[in-house]
Amino acid sequence: MGRIVVLGGDGFCGWPTSLYLSKRGHDVVLVDNLSRRKIDIELEVESLTPIRPLSERLRAWHEVTGETLQFQDFTIGEHYHRLLTLIKEERPDVIIHFAEQRAAPYSMKSPAHKRYTVNNNLNATNDVLCAIVDSGVDTHLVHLGTMGVYGYGTSGMRIPEGYLRVKVDLEGGHQAEQDILYPANPGSIYHMTKTQDQLFFYYYNKNDGVRITDLHQGVVWGTQTAETDLDERLINRFDYDGDYGTVLNRFLMQSAIGYPLTVHGTGGQTRAFIHIRDTCRCIEIAIENPPQLGERVNILNQMTETHRVRELAELISEKTGTPIEYVTNPRNEADENDLHVVNERFLGYGLEPTTLEDGIMTEVSDIARKYAGRCDRSKIPSTSLWRKVEAGQPA
Amino acid sequence: MGRIVVLGGDGFCGWPTSLYLSKRGHDVVLVDNLSRRKIDIELEVESLTPIRPLSERLRAWHEVTGETLQFQDFTIGEHYHRLLTLIKEERPDVIIHFAEQRAAPYSMKSPAHKRYTVNNNLNATNDVLCAIVDSGVDTHLVHLGTMGVYGYGTSGMRIPEGYLRVKVDLEGGHQAEQDILYPANPGSIYHMTKTQDQLFFYYYNKNDGVRITDLHQGVVWGTQTAETDLDERLINRFDYDGDYGTVLNRFLMQSAIGYPLTVHGTGGQTRAFIHIRDTCRCIEIAIENPPQLGERVNILNQMTETHRVRELAELISEKTGTPIEYVTNPRNEADENDLHVVNERFLGYGLEPTTLEDGIMTEVSDIARKYAGRCDRSKIPSTSLWRKVEAGQPA
Repeated sequence: MGRIVVLGGDGFCGWPTSLYLSKRGHDVVLVDNLSRRKIDIELEVESLTPIRPLSERLRAWHEVTGETLQFQDFTIGEHYHRLLTLIKEERPDVIIHFAEQRAAPYSMKSPAHKRYTVNNNLNATNDVLCAIVDSGVDTHLVHLGTMGVYGYGTSGMRIPEGYLRVKVDLEGGHQAEQDILYPANPGSIYHMTKTQDQLFFYYYNKNDGVRITDLHQGVVWGTQTAETDLDERLINRFDYDGDYGTVLNRFLMQSAIGYPLTVHGTGGQTRAFIHIRDTCRCIEIAIENPPQLGERVNILNQMTETHRVRELAELISEKTGTPIEYVTNPRNEADENDLHVVNERFLGYGLEPTTLEDGIMTEVSDIARKYAGRCDRSKIPSTSLWRKVEAGQPA
Repeated sequence: MGRIVVLGGDGFCGWPTSLYLSKRGHDVVLVDNLSRRKIDIELEVESLTPIRPLSERLRAWHEVTGETLQFQDFTIGEHYHRLLTLIKEERPDVIIHFAEQRAAPYSMKSPAHKRYTVNNNLNATNDVLCAIVDSGVDTHLVHLGTMGVYGYGTSGMRIPEGYLRVKVDLEGGHQAEQDILYPANPGSIYHMTKTQDQLFFYYYNKNDGVRITDLHQGVVWGTQTAETDLDERLINRFDYDGDYGTVLNRFLMQSAIGYPLTVHGTGGQTRAFIHIRDTCRCIEIAIENPPQLGERVNILNQMTETHRVRELAELISEKTGTPIEYVTNPRNEADENDLHVVNERFLGYGLEPTTLEDGIMTEVSDIARKYAGRCDRSKIPSTSLWRKVEAGQPA
């Protein structure tokens, strides 16, 4: 079993991943600066599920399983020497990098939020790579990227796993084929930082031979995993607010409190989805299949199904009887888009997806309805605008 | 005549550009945090030419020409509100962005230098774009990029101006053509930040309609322009040290003090060049030909000729009688590369290049020999290594 450092281990994906790996015998050190909890304070909102302080979570995990998670509180991208010391002392087999601001609407709220997201995410990724090289430790970096690096405008083309084969004209009328990083088309400041992360990975892999897996993840749904479900003190976050709540969680919340399901625009936007349990499993698969020394950055699409937003609304409406309401889209994007995604590599490694059709009612009843009393309904609408409103137009 | 803000206006390109534009009747505000002068202190080296303190430069310019350059001392990427206030109050027609750490060897010196370059360059570019949007001022951003974003490994292909037309396979056996940003292939941390800058430009142009020209500049040579030559107090920098001195300046210096011309590796690396006078003229052309609202980022290749490093050494050796010495290459790059660059747009706008063949002896006699007494010969060799030296190998 390996030694694993999880950066951002207190977050929505980081926490269940840390428990999943600890349960399977890995030695896990969790690093977090609790920024996600502090953003809750700023936004005056709380996770619908009653998440416990981190020290209580860690105690509960030890009580329930006998396993110990180590924890260090510092900021990746700022406290470089603590990170370097950790890598040199721990000599991890794997570093999993979740330590980025991960909400597109939050990244668009104001100039300060744009600047925070850029500064935090880019310095974090650079510091991790720089410290790996500096330490001389041969470790495997696994990074949570996003399907959003591809953009959603591509039509008639299946989105490959990271690299695109193109033909270019040479001088003298010849043609050549080459693999390039799929041309980036970010839809928000947050997504932009993830496309810039790809260039960090490309460079440090090429120049220093750092072994890297970049997971282009879809929208994560679901709350609990087998491990977070062991004890209520281990419960995972559930964000339903307009900034951090994904479209699906907002629908679940709306149905639980009898609030119409608000669809942005025509709801024709197609998104890729994956259950939080499958996120943990995919990361385990990535750890078990590291790239070899000298291999290019390993990019996998981490998603299991695609749906149009209005189809999701219809699915939930049908199962719960909640009506649908169409509202103006605050994002700067096409009303309708197709999305065809290649995800054969994870399936080939044995991933068995949890489907929305199967899991959705558990979320409605075990999470949204159970904790509905904790919901602040004023926080559900998404208010971040992608562009300044033009003079004379209503907000 | 326009209102122009020059960010990084005290540097090697920023200073002569500011004077050039001021001379032609533009109203110029220069912003600089004097970081380049402070790096001289860190590196224990000085410009070969005796550059004067900025306030003396500004006084001299006023005395000699009657023109006034305004100056503000703050850090782009850090003092956001000063930048925003400046843009709101000045309402510039053009902002020229030179405010980045610009030496590849410096960016590779140590983890601290890597981190500084990433933090400084990326936050600077994001702050400029964010402040333009925040201010609501419709200004044209002109950015000094580098030919290095393309990488130097491309063979048999002419490097286009920013965008590459590729053919991709669609589902059902169809093919489509599309223009993509030329696939980035950075050769150092510094170059990597410039490839990440391209994604900032792409995004802010797409989402907010910011009008942007990105100039992919070759290696700049030459020291003086018509304006910096008006008075010795206006003299431009000449860097000959291993970090900031370009290959050509190091050769000039070596020939002036009778030190063999040190060629890295076989000297088969091909680089693109441009004279500092032509840099100023290209920026003027860029200002006169702004992209229209709704147009994509305007990318031009700002270079006038290409040479192999050993050809440069031979040219200077022939003219000055200085011998050539081949030494180990500290960079992680191919020994030999071709470089074919499209630069038809600037030529089409009327740029008349200063050629190396014509200008090189002026540099040898008027700069390198004239100020040879100020040279610290111990600073000429390039000592930054691109990769850690493997155990057991000599440095």
